[in-house]
Amino acid sequence: MKIDGRAYRTIWRSGARSVEALDQTRLPHELVFHRIDTLDGAAAAIRTMIVRGAPLIGATAAYGLAIALAAAADDDGLEAAYAQLLASRPTAVNLRYALEDVRAVVAPLPPQARAEAAFARADAICEEDVAQNLAIGEAGFKLIEAAHLRTGRTVNVLTHCNAGWLATVDWGTATAPIYLAHDRGVPVHVWVDETRPRNQGASLTAFELGQHGVPHTLVADNAGGHLMQRGLVDLCIVGADRVTARGDVANKIGTYLKALAARAHDVPFYVALPGPTIDWRLDDGLAIEIEERSPREVTHVWGRLDDGRVAEVMIAPAGTSAANPAFDVTPAELVTGLITERGLVAAERGALAAIYGRG
Amino acid sequence: MKIDGRAYRTIWRSGARSVEALDQTRLPHELVFHRIDTLDGAAAAIRTMIVRGAPLIGATAAYGLAIALAAAADDDGLEAAYAQLLASRPTAVNLRYALEDVRAVVAPLPPQARAEAAFARADAICEEDVAQNLAIGEAGFKLIEAAHLRTGRTVNVLTHCNAGWLATVDWGTATAPIYLAHDRGVPVHVWVDETRPRNQGASLTAFELGQHGVPHTLVADNAGGHLMQRGLVDLCIVGADRVTARGDVANKIGTYLKALAARAHDVPFYVALPGPTIDWRLDDGLAIEIEERSPREVTHVWGRLDDGRVAEVMIAPAGTSAANPAFDVTPAELVTGLITERGLVAAERGALAAIYGRG
Repeated sequence: MKIDGRAYRTIWRSGARSVEALDQTRLPHELVFHRIDTLDGAAAAIRTMIVRGAPLIGATAAYGLAIALAAAADDDGLEAAYAQLLASRPTAVNLRYALEDVRAVVAPLPPQARAEAAFARADAICEEDVAQNLAIGEAGFKLIEAAHLRTGRTVNVLTHCNAGWLATVDWGTATAPIYLAHDRGVPVHVWVDETRPRNQGASLTAFELGQHGVPHTLVADNAGGHLMQRGLVDLCIVGADRVTARGDVANKIGTYLKALAARAHDVPFYVALPGPTIDWRLDDGLAIEIEERSPREVTHVWGRLDDGRVAEVMIAPAGTSAANPAFDVTPAELVTGLITERGLVAAERGALAAIYGRG
Repeated sequence: MKIDGRAYRTIWRSGARSVEALDQTRLPHELVFHRIDTLDGAAAAIRTMIVRGAPLIGATAAYGLAIALAAAADDDGLEAAYAQLLASRPTAVNLRYALEDVRAVVAPLPPQARAEAAFARADAICEEDVAQNLAIGEAGFKLIEAAHLRTGRTVNVLTHCNAGWLATVDWGTATAPIYLAHDRGVPVHVWVDETRPRNQGASLTAFELGQHGVPHTLVADNAGGHLMQRGLVDLCIVGADRVTARGDVANKIGTYLKALAARAHDVPFYVALPGPTIDWRLDDGLAIEIEERSPREVTHVWGRLDDGRVAEVMIAPAGTSAANPAFDVTPAELVTGLITERGLVAAERGALAAIYGRG
């Protein structure tokens, strides 16, 4: 999508053995490109959230494995790189799928052919992500269009965190339906949860919607229940870091609270995701390991000072202890539907298995 | 309660015609006392949240009326001051009660006797607040003690915003049971919601609990659903800005989301309040006017820089529009009980009217 009128993806090949990515820790205040050309650099980019969002983590890990193979392509190098990248973030299952995907392609090859094959496969993973997101967009577009036809007015969509194009290679998952609706003239307005503690809604979703011209209003995460109680939300669309075989959804911390409010007020609650986000090995979402991140993300907030510099301020008394679970689990029964690249499907084991041919 | 080992109240007489208050816009980073000696100063202190919290707003307004009468004690002066102070914040009903209380005392008096009588009444309102909060503490203490006896371990209480001693004259409403439990050796730990957009949990509740030595952990507002889902919360205790005759609760934005999560996980959800917080004229909480505050509170965050200076950082792209509803309404059916100075009571019209003798 566009920034300052110019089309970007979140990650792209910058050379035979390297990629560049938008540094998402610097947005919205600075547009910085981050070069990744070592295995350690790829793992660090994921761990420090220079790249984030389940699909983009997968794409970055795929490139990371390719970059590692360019330096050490024997079986030991492959396995070491696989393990290091897999450990860089615990929750997104896309990470494992992308790594398994690339490994399956390169493992049968002689070492000297592995790096090139891995890069080609990583490139293809990126293209597949873009195509998947567009298909998700088409499926979700119908929901927004139907809401508009039903009400005759602007459709108010609430989203949490950033499942936007910045979380993917392009288009986004939760945002793809919104971008298509906007581009096709269906009036849509987005309530953007700021998404503490890292503020990905305020810093990323507000940024990308603003750059694309989609009307939106930033709200504190606390406001969603009130907005739904007052009839100001027509539908919720969020992304997912992992979805289990029966449709439980692990997504950014706070998603679950919005799902509870949506249920209380009969607001449809949709989760947009590509197939690789589904963890077929798991049924119970509560079995998903929830990443506990640094307390500093809670006690400190990063932003731009009046003089233009970026800085971090401490919002709590010095020495305050904080807990920082990064994700929560929304049980399938609170999910109205899953918006996938294969269409809209119930958050239910049979339906999900059927559209993915795993029945 | 204590700050740096020294006992404070939030507001106190500093002279015959003036009061001082803790400037709560500067906590936790600076301990600043703010002198109030004019009507405009009193209204501004309430409006700009130098003083905040429903009971403390009431006490400040009472002193503000007394200060105004010291300057203009005729009927016109009384009514003008009453109107100006009433308009300083829209949601807390304590404000109106305190003003009506003082006006009822002084209106029958000759103008020259009004200021002194108003100051005496304002002093009494403060003492009554402290006594009420201690009584709330006793009623709520039993709940925490019972949870400890039942589980045999530390009781985990989740609270939202600051209904602590800083929101009252002393002791607090939601915190009074916690302070009593802690002081009496019942092990208690508090999950402190940071409470965006103004972060009163991070800046005030964490501060006052820390100064008193109560174990606590700061969490993003988004975390409460996850904590309850994982069995990490034994009970919720929040304050209230206004409670209707049937027990609907207007409190800081985000309270409603926690009440929904508590219901989903059978976590008892209590609201601590003194009688003056009840608006007997209203039944339906959704009829309460919800204050819409400045978007800047959402787009900017205030805190301490590494070098010790306090500053505000912008967390969203420049020009982002934001909505900032300050309160939400939790319907009575989600409230396990109201902890009042007259004991624990069901959030139900008959029970509430009975204990307050309004049956």
